[in-house]
Amino acid sequence: MSDAEPCHDIAHLAHVELLTPKPEESLRFFLDVMGMQESARAGDSVYLRGWDDYEHHTLKLTASKQPGIGHFAFRAASPAALQRRAKALQATGLGVGWTDGDVGHGPAYLARDPDGHKIEIYYETEWYKPTAALKPALKNQAARYASHGVGVRRLDHLNLLAHDIKGTREFLENAVGLRTTEMIVLDTGVEEGIWLTATNKSYDIAYTHDHTGARGRFHHVTYAVDSRELVLRAADICLEHGVHIETGPHKHAIQQTFFLYVFEPGGNRFEVCNAGARLILAPDWKPIVWTEAERAKGQAWGLQTISTFHTYGTPDAEQNRTLDSDSKS
Amino acid sequence: MSDAEPCHDIAHLAHVELLTPKPEESLRFFLDVMGMQESARAGDSVYLRGWDDYEHHTLKLTASKQPGIGHFAFRAASPAALQRRAKALQATGLGVGWTDGDVGHGPAYLARDPDGHKIEIYYETEWYKPTAALKPALKNQAARYASHGVGVRRLDHLNLLAHDIKGTREFLENAVGLRTTEMIVLDTGVEEGIWLTATNKSYDIAYTHDHTGARGRFHHVTYAVDSRELVLRAADICLEHGVHIETGPHKHAIQQTFFLYVFEPGGNRFEVCNAGARLILAPDWKPIVWTEAERAKGQAWGLQTISTFHTYGTPDAEQNRTLDSDSKS
Amino acid sequence: MSDAEPCHDIAHLAHVELLTPKPEESLRFFLDVMGMQESARAGDSVYLRGWDDYEHHTLKLTASKQPGIGHFAFRAASPAALQRRAKALQATGLGVGWTDGDVGHGPAYLARDPDGHKIEIYYETEWYKPTAALKPALKNQAARYASHGVGVRRLDHLNLLAHDIKGTREFLENAVGLRTTEMIVLDTGVEEGIWLTATNKSYDIAYTHDHTGARGRFHHVTYAVDSRELVLRAADICLEHGVHIETGPHKHAIQQTFFLYVFEPGGNRFEVCNAGARLILAPDWKPIVWTEAERAKGQAWGLQTISTFHTYGTPDAEQNRTLDSDSKS
Amino acid sequence: MSDAEPCHDIAHLAHVELLTPKPEESLRFFLDVMGMQESARAGDSVYLRGWDDYEHHTLKLTASKQPGIGHFAFRAASPAALQRRAKALQATGLGVGWTDGDVGHGPAYLARDPDGHKIEIYYETEWYKPTAALKPALKNQAARYASHGVGVRRLDHLNLLAHDIKGTREFLENAVGLRTTEMIVLDTGVEEGIWLTATNKSYDIAYTHDHTGARGRFHHVTYAVDSRELVLRAADICLEHGVHIETGPHKHAIQQTFFLYVFEPGGNRFEVCNAGARLILAPDWKPIVWTEAERAKGQAWGLQTISTFHTYGTPDAEQNRTLDSDSKS
Repeated sequence: MSDAEPCHDIAHLAHVELLTPKPEESLRFFLDVMGMQESARAGDSVYLRGWDDYEHHTLKLTASKQPGIGHFAFRAASPAALQRRAKALQATGLGVGWTDGDVGHGPAYLARDPDGHKIEIYYETEWYKPTAALKPALKNQAARYASHGVGVRRLDHLNLLAHDIKGTREFLENAVGLRTTEMIVLDTGVEEGIWLTATNKSYDIAYTHDHTGARGRFHHVTYAVDSRELVLRAADICLEHGVHIETGPHKHAIQQTFFLYVFEPGGNRFEVCNAGARLILAPDWKPIVWTEAERAKGQAWGLQTISTFHTYGTPDAEQNRTLDSDSKS
Repeated sequence: MSDAEPCHDIAHLAHVELLTPKPEESLRFFLDVMGMQESARAGDSVYLRGWDDYEHHTLKLTASKQPGIGHFAFRAASPAALQRRAKALQATGLGVGWTDGDVGHGPAYLARDPDGHKIEIYYETEWYKPTAALKPALKNQAARYASHGVGVRRLDHLNLLAHDIKGTREFLENAVGLRTTEMIVLDTGVEEGIWLTATNKSYDIAYTHDHTGARGRFHHVTYAVDSRELVLRAADICLEHGVHIETGPHKHAIQQTFFLYVFEPGGNRFEVCNAGARLILAPDWKPIVWTEAERAKGQAWGLQTISTFHTYGTPDAEQNRTLDSDSKS
Repeated sequence: MSDAEPCHDIAHLAHVELLTPKPEESLRFFLDVMGMQESARAGDSVYLRGWDDYEHHTLKLTASKQPGIGHFAFRAASPAALQRRAKALQATGLGVGWTDGDVGHGPAYLARDPDGHKIEIYYETEWYKPTAALKPALKNQAARYASHGVGVRRLDHLNLLAHDIKGTREFLENAVGLRTTEMIVLDTGVEEGIWLTATNKSYDIAYTHDHTGARGRFHHVTYAVDSRELVLRAADICLEHGVHIETGPHKHAIQQTFFLYVFEPGGNRFEVCNAGARLILAPDWKPIVWTEAERAKGQAWGLQTISTFHTYGTPDAEQNRTLDSDSKS
Repeated sequence: MSDAEPCHDIAHLAHVELLTPKPEESLRFFLDVMGMQESARAGDSVYLRGWDDYEHHTLKLTASKQPGIGHFAFRAASPAALQRRAKALQATGLGVGWTDGDVGHGPAYLARDPDGHKIEIYYETEWYKPTAALKPALKNQAARYASHGVGVRRLDHLNLLAHDIKGTREFLENAVGLRTTEMIVLDTGVEEGIWLTATNKSYDIAYTHDHTGARGRFHHVTYAVDSRELVLRAADICLEHGVHIETGPHKHAIQQTFFLYVFEPGGNRFEVCNAGARLILAPDWKPIVWTEAERAKGQAWGLQTISTFHTYGTPDAEQNRTLDSDSKS
C-alpha cells in the first residue's frame, strides 16, 4: 500500500472502560439518567451500550479506588488490518502484547500510548443480540429506542489528557493509523490539542495537554444523540436528576460539536453531543490548525471555556502523580 | 489485498449532473429555495454546492430537452485507488474510458452502470475557496452558513431506477467497490431495491427497480440538513414557494432517513433529509433484507408510500424508451 | 359589560374524562408511553396529568363498557365568572344543575352541549402538590419533567363530534363564552367544523360534523410537548411500543398544529401536538373560514387526510345510536 | 367588576419603539439578520414586524442620537377597556394625555411609568395586509414565512430597567392592569425584578433594577421563534453575520425562556427566544418569588449570568443621567 493512500485499518472507536469509586451510583447514572442498556456483568464490571451501538458493549464500568480510564479499544477493519496494527504498535516499543479479549470481543493487541493510557485493538466481536424486551420495531437498528432518560444513541468519541501531544499524535497517526482533522498549536509551535478520526465522523478521539504533569488521565467520553434539541432535553433531565452540569449546552468552535458536559457520580466527565450532518468526507482532509488567538475567542457563540475544562481530569492529578498506573484496572 | 478486507477505494459520492428543461427556474429553485451556492457557469451548466460541501461543486445543473440525470461521480480515496477502480470498471466491459475531467475536478474514468447511467470516478479535485462574501466565521466549514431558504448542508445520496437490480448491485460492489447496507428482496427472490455506501453514512447511492421498462432513469438526489426540525422548516419553505411536495416529511423504515420529497421546476425529484446520528460503523455490516410483507407496512410511522414514488422518474418513461440515451447529456 | 367586549369568564379547558373498556392497558399507555403522572385513584377512575399541568388532574380515566368521553370541564376565571356562566347555561335550557365537584375540584355547573356531551364549569381547584419524587428542580413548573416515555407537558385541546355544528358554535360562544378562531363552511353554507378558544392558544376545543348520525361522540384529546422534534420522538416511541399510529406526524393546514394521532388501548384517539410560538393575541380576531376547495388540498404539506379521521369516533357509531347516553359515565 | 376578578383590559404588548444612532445598520440587522418585514417608513422611522405579527408593526425603529427606547404600547381588549385604562392611568398622576396615534394605529393614551418610560395604550389598529410577495400559503398566518435570516415569528416581550421596582409593579398591576407571574425579592425584602403578563404567555414585560441610578433605560426587546433549534440556528446566523452575542443560547431559570442575547448595531440588546409549550393558564396564578440564594445558582443549566446583563442598558447610564429624557424621541 503506497504512502499516499489513507490507512483504513481501524474501523472505529469501539469501547471505553471507565473506573468509578461509586459503582452503584455510576451505574444508576448510566442506566437511569443516560438511558443506556446493560449487556452483562462480570467481576467488578458492568457492560453497557447506547441503544444503537451494534457491539456487545461500548462502555465497561469498573469499580475502582479512584475514577479514570481503565482502557479503551478500537475495532480493526479486518483480521489482516488487526495484524498490521499489532505489528506497527509493537514496532513503537509501546506494545504490551496480545490478550484473550474480554466479554463481548476476541483477541486484542494491547499497547500503551506515549502517556501510558492502555489501548487495545481487536477484530472479532459479538454483535449485540437484543432481548425480547429490547427488540426494536425496525430491524435496521441495534436495539429498541431508549425512551427513558437521555437515551444516548451510540458512542461518539473519547477525550484524554497527555503530556506530549505531538508525540501522541505521531503515535496515533503512524502506529494506530488515525487521521488528524483539527489541532491547536500554540504560538510557540507546541501542539496543545489534537482531534483524530478513523471514520467519517470528524473525530473519534482527542487529546489535550495535561498541564498538571500527571500521566494517563481521562478527560471525557461522549455519546451522541440525534439532534441538538435532544442535547437540550438531556440538560433538562440532568437538572431534574441533580446531575452537576459543568458547561453547556453550547457549540464548540473546534469541530463544531454541540455539547453538554456533566459529571457522573464517580467523578468522571461525561458528554452528550450532536454533530448535525457534519462529516469529514475528503480522503485528503488537511488538519485545521487553531491558534491561541482564535482559541481565545471562546466557544462558537462566544461562551468562555470554563476553567475546570482545562484543569479537571480523572483521577485527581495530585494522587495520580504518585500512582502505580498499572494498578488502576 | 485479501478478499476479506473491505474496499476503501471510493471516498464518497462526489456530484450529480441534473438535466432540466427549465434551466432558469431550476436554478432559482436551487439558489433561492434550497439556499445552495453557485460556484461557476460553463456552457449550458451551472455548478452548485451546499454550504458545507468541500468540493467545487456537488450539483451540476445542465439545460436539456428533458429532465433526468446527466452523470454522477464518486471521488476515489487516492490516485492508486482511482487506477484500481478504472481497471475494475474496464474489466466489466462497461468502461467507456478516461475523460479530461470538468470544471472543478481532474481526469475521470467514465463507465456505464448496467442500466446505462453514466458514472465517473476521479481523484484530483478543486477544494472550494469561498469568496469574501461566503467566508465562514469558523474555518472548519467550507463556506458561510446559508441563512436564506432551506440552506442544505451537503450532498447526501443519489437514487436511481434500473432494470436489473441484482446485476447493478454486483457491479457496484465488485467494480465500483461499494458495500450494500440494506436491500428489498421480493418473495420470488428477485431484488427490488438496494442501498450501498462508500462511507459511514448508511448509504451513498440507492437503486430501485424501474417497472416501466425504461432505462437510465433518475429517481432523486438528496441533500442533508442538520436536524429533523430543519427538514420540517424546509417543508414550510416549499409550501410558501409553491414547490410541489410529493410526500413527507416522514421517516423511512428502510434506512430510517427523515425525508421530504419535492419536485424541482424541471421535473426532477429532490429530497431534503436528516439521518440523526445514525452511522454504519461496523466494517462487516450484514445487509438488512426487507421482505414484501415488511415493506407493506409502509414507512416507519405507518404512512403508506405514495404511488408516484414507485412509478415516477425522469425522464418520462414513455419518451425514454425511445430515446437514444447517448444524446441525453 | 358591553357586547363589544370579549368575554373572559372561562380561563381554560381544565380536564377531560375518558372512558375505556381496557382500564389497565389504557393506564399503562398514559403512564408508560405518554409519560403522564398519576394524582389519585377513586372508584373506577384514575386521575392523571402532564408534568406541567398545574391542577390536580387534566385527564380522568374511567373504566367503562365502551370508549368515549365521560365529561369535560372548563375552569372559570373567577367565582363571579362561574356564576355568570351557570346562569347563561341555564338560560339555554341545556343546563343540568350544580354538582359537588370531584376529586381535585370544587362545585361545578353541569350542562349538556346541543349534541349531548357533558360539560362542566368550576372555579375552585386543587393545585397539584408534587410528591418528593416529583418535585421539580425549578419551582416555576408544576412537577418534575417526565423523562420517560413521551413526557407530555400539558393538556392542549379537545375535539368532539356533533350533529349540529352551527348550533354548537352558538352555544359555545354565547353560553360558554368562547371565541371562534377558525371554521370550515361547506359550499352549501353549512358549518362543518369549528375551533374555539378561551385563551391565547388558537383553540381549546373543536367540533366537527358527525356524519354517522350518532350523538355525543368523542374525536380526540390532545396534549402538548415543547417542540416538533419531541412530536417526532413521540412517534418513534409509539412505534417501539406497538401503539397504532393513525396519521402523522404532519402539520394541519387548519390551525397549523403539528400533530401525531394514535389510538390508546381503549380505542380512543389521542393526539400529541406542538404549536410552535403561534398564539392568538388579537382581541378582535375574525374567524378564518376554510372552504371545501381549500380543505381538499389536504394538510399543510399536502398529506391527504386519512379517511378514518373523518369517520372514526368513540364510541362506535352503530352502538351509540341506540345507547342511553346517560349511562355512559 | 369585583376585585377578585382578573383584569383583561390589556390584550397584549403591541409594539416597541427602538432608538438607534445607526439607523441604516440597525435596519439591515432587523431585515437581513432577523428576517423581519418592513411595513412603512415615515419621518425618521421604519416600521417592522415579525412574519406572524398581525398588526401593522411591532417594532418602530427611529433614528436618534443615542440608543434606547422611544416608547412602547399595549393594545387594549376593547374600546371600553381603553377608556378604563386611560382613566386608571390618569388617576396615578402619571398620565400625559391622548395622542392621535401613529402610522398603523388609532388614538392612544400616553403615560409615563414611574421610571419615566413612555407607555401608550390604544385599541384601533390596522391589521397587516400582506403585499402579493408576502401573501402566505396558509391564510391563518399574517404573512409569508420569512425564509431568510432568523425569521422571527412575533413580538414576545419587553424588558426595561427601573429605579423603583415595587412602585413599578404596583403601577403595572393597578393602573395598566397586568398580572405578576414571577419576581426576584432580595433578602432585604426589596424587589429586584418583576415579570408581568396580560396574556397566557408567562410574561409580556419585565423590569429589573437599574443599579446605575439612570432613569428610563432599556434592557432588551424579544421576538419568538418556533423552537429551541431555531434559537440555535439564530446563534449560527449571528455568528456568520458578525453580530455580537452577549450570552446564550441557554435557558433562564426564571420563566424558563430559552434565550439568545445579541446587540443590534445601534447598541440595543435584542433577544430571540422560545418558550416551548409553556403557558400560564391559571387565572389565579401566584407569583413565583426567587430569592438571592436561588438566583445565585445562575441560569437553569448552571450558566453564570454574564455581568453585562446586570449593568448594560441603553442609553449609556452616564449620559442618561444628565439627559432631558423628553428629547429622546
